[in-house]
Amino acid sequence: MSEQTVGELGEFALIDAIAARLEKTSATAVPVGIGDDSAVVSAKGGNVVACMDLLAQGVHFRLDWSQAKDIGRKAAAQNLADIFAMGARPTALLVGLALPQETPVAWVMGLADGLSAEAAEVGVTVVGGDIVRSGSIVISVTALGELGTAKAILRSGAKPGNVLAIAGRLGFAQAGLLMLSRGFRSPQVLVAAHRAPEPPYELAKLATHATSMIDISDGLVSDLGHIAQASKVKINIESDKFQIPEALAAAASAFNGNAMEWILSGGEDHAFAATFDTAPAVPRGWTIIGTVNSGDPGVSVDGAEYLVPGWDHFSTH
Amino acid sequence: MSEQTVGELGEFALIDAIAARLEKTSATAVPVGIGDDSAVVSAKGGNVVACMDLLAQGVHFRLDWSQAKDIGRKAAAQNLADIFAMGARPTALLVGLALPQETPVAWVMGLADGLSAEAAEVGVTVVGGDIVRSGSIVISVTALGELGTAKAILRSGAKPGNVLAIAGRLGFAQAGLLMLSRGFRSPQVLVAAHRAPEPPYELAKLATHATSMIDISDGLVSDLGHIAQASKVKINIESDKFQIPEALAAAASAFNGNAMEWILSGGEDHAFAATFDTAPAVPRGWTIIGTVNSGDPGVSVDGAEYLVPGWDHFSTH
Repeated sequence: MSEQTVGELGEFALIDAIAARLEKTSATAVPVGIGDDSAVVSAKGGNVVACMDLLAQGVHFRLDWSQAKDIGRKAAAQNLADIFAMGARPTALLVGLALPQETPVAWVMGLADGLSAEAAEVGVTVVGGDIVRSGSIVISVTALGELGTAKAILRSGAKPGNVLAIAGRLGFAQAGLLMLSRGFRSPQVLVAAHRAPEPPYELAKLATHATSMIDISDGLVSDLGHIAQASKVKINIESDKFQIPEALAAAASAFNGNAMEWILSGGEDHAFAATFDTAPAVPRGWTIIGTVNSGDPGVSVDGAEYLVPGWDHFSTH
Repeated sequence: MSEQTVGELGEFALIDAIAARLEKTSATAVPVGIGDDSAVVSAKGGNVVACMDLLAQGVHFRLDWSQAKDIGRKAAAQNLADIFAMGARPTALLVGLALPQETPVAWVMGLADGLSAEAAEVGVTVVGGDIVRSGSIVISVTALGELGTAKAILRSGAKPGNVLAIAGRLGFAQAGLLMLSRGFRSPQVLVAAHRAPEPPYELAKLATHATSMIDISDGLVSDLGHIAQASKVKINIESDKFQIPEALAAAASAFNGNAMEWILSGGEDHAFAATFDTAPAVPRGWTIIGTVNSGDPGVSVDGAEYLVPGWDHFSTH
């Protein structure tokens, strides 16, 4: 007998199976969860922080390169990182699944496990969502957060004289993707980084006094470009502030790659970059990597323009 | 020269074009909109109400049957209806678009116009979202709402002795879909109802004292089944309480259809059904159509079991 598919199980039974699979929440943050028209989620401070990301099969993940659980972790992580990058704390996830009818139910359960596991890392759960039939898999995740008494940390808050710092890994996911695309399944630390990022949520929590913050989804230089534009500042990255991790150096050497290029332009690690008033204000665990200056908005590396290798989900070349 | 496609325009330019197209919001409800990691949205009462729906090409809409603007209206309307069905007021939408590269930019702009127009009906805007490449179109909409000092109206609140009432049209979208599937483009009122529902938002606002409420997305009997199960009550619909609208009666006569069946089982009109303590508590503009009784949870029509024609997004038969 072949594996059961979502087409065989049916929509309502599939939703029940997923709901049963998801971790139950403690009642305080989520007065109403799955099973009504909408969920009800707390929003301390009277404001809610909200973001949405989509992941598409063949674009953000390949079924032969990633397990369902990893894809679930990744889908949750990239949204949770966006909430922390606002200086907020996540409160809930909503998840939409567009699935071909032949999708194995076991795959969907694995995805739910991954979503649930990553959400549990920060103490939240999936409180609602939707499932529809489609030609290929698209996963839609909305993360909600609350600010409490804090002010949102925006991309527009960087000031000349600020210092630039990062928390978390850079270049690992990009290098892991390269390994997979060349037919390798190792080194494990890089491949795993592509399959499921590990945003340093705890380090982001230490940075609620940052003047600006962003999570690195497209690549360090690209994403700092958003801060530079929004804040109307010139950001300079000093490449000698980076210690090239051993795993990246080894992979670069083996594949004739450039570890510094992976660090500067590799996406999907969901590290955090932030600016702070002064060097002493940079939290423990963060690394100072540059400065914020006045001038035409933009990002330089060691004072020179840096041409980012192309990154566009729609680009055909 | 052929129409410009999203692949040619590129992701960031497309997002800019959409953002420029969307109505600008007044600042109070949305302190931070499109352009940061997350949006910040007010949540009066300290709780946020949130829901998500997906619409997939070929399942929820066909490009040859619906204009982009209608699809945008429909995507927004079905989520906004879920917020009102909780007794809450919408505050914002987030929209995710999974699009083939060959999608015309003009189509995406039409979709944005439709989303924006429907959101404007209730005074909100699109505050964030995401765009990715995919094999077919999937639209993901998250609606956020606030309760203020009100309590959420749940599916579990119906009590024996309550009266059942509805607000809005039933069967129109189903009849319109039937017309289109048989190659007709009229009657206009039915076809338009399939293309973009018109949930009676203002009537829902009058029902914040309902004991339970739901918006009719799958069909009256099906959706009342959710209330019956959650509230552990028996709901009886009295068919003689309905006046068959002229458009439905004419279409049923022309197509050898059954107007009452469309009313009882047709989905996607996003009318509201609610239960109230007493008949005098039913708001003006609502129609009493039945009663809530004790007994095994379920829904009957004129005291007899009603077999709902199948409705399952994954069902193959």
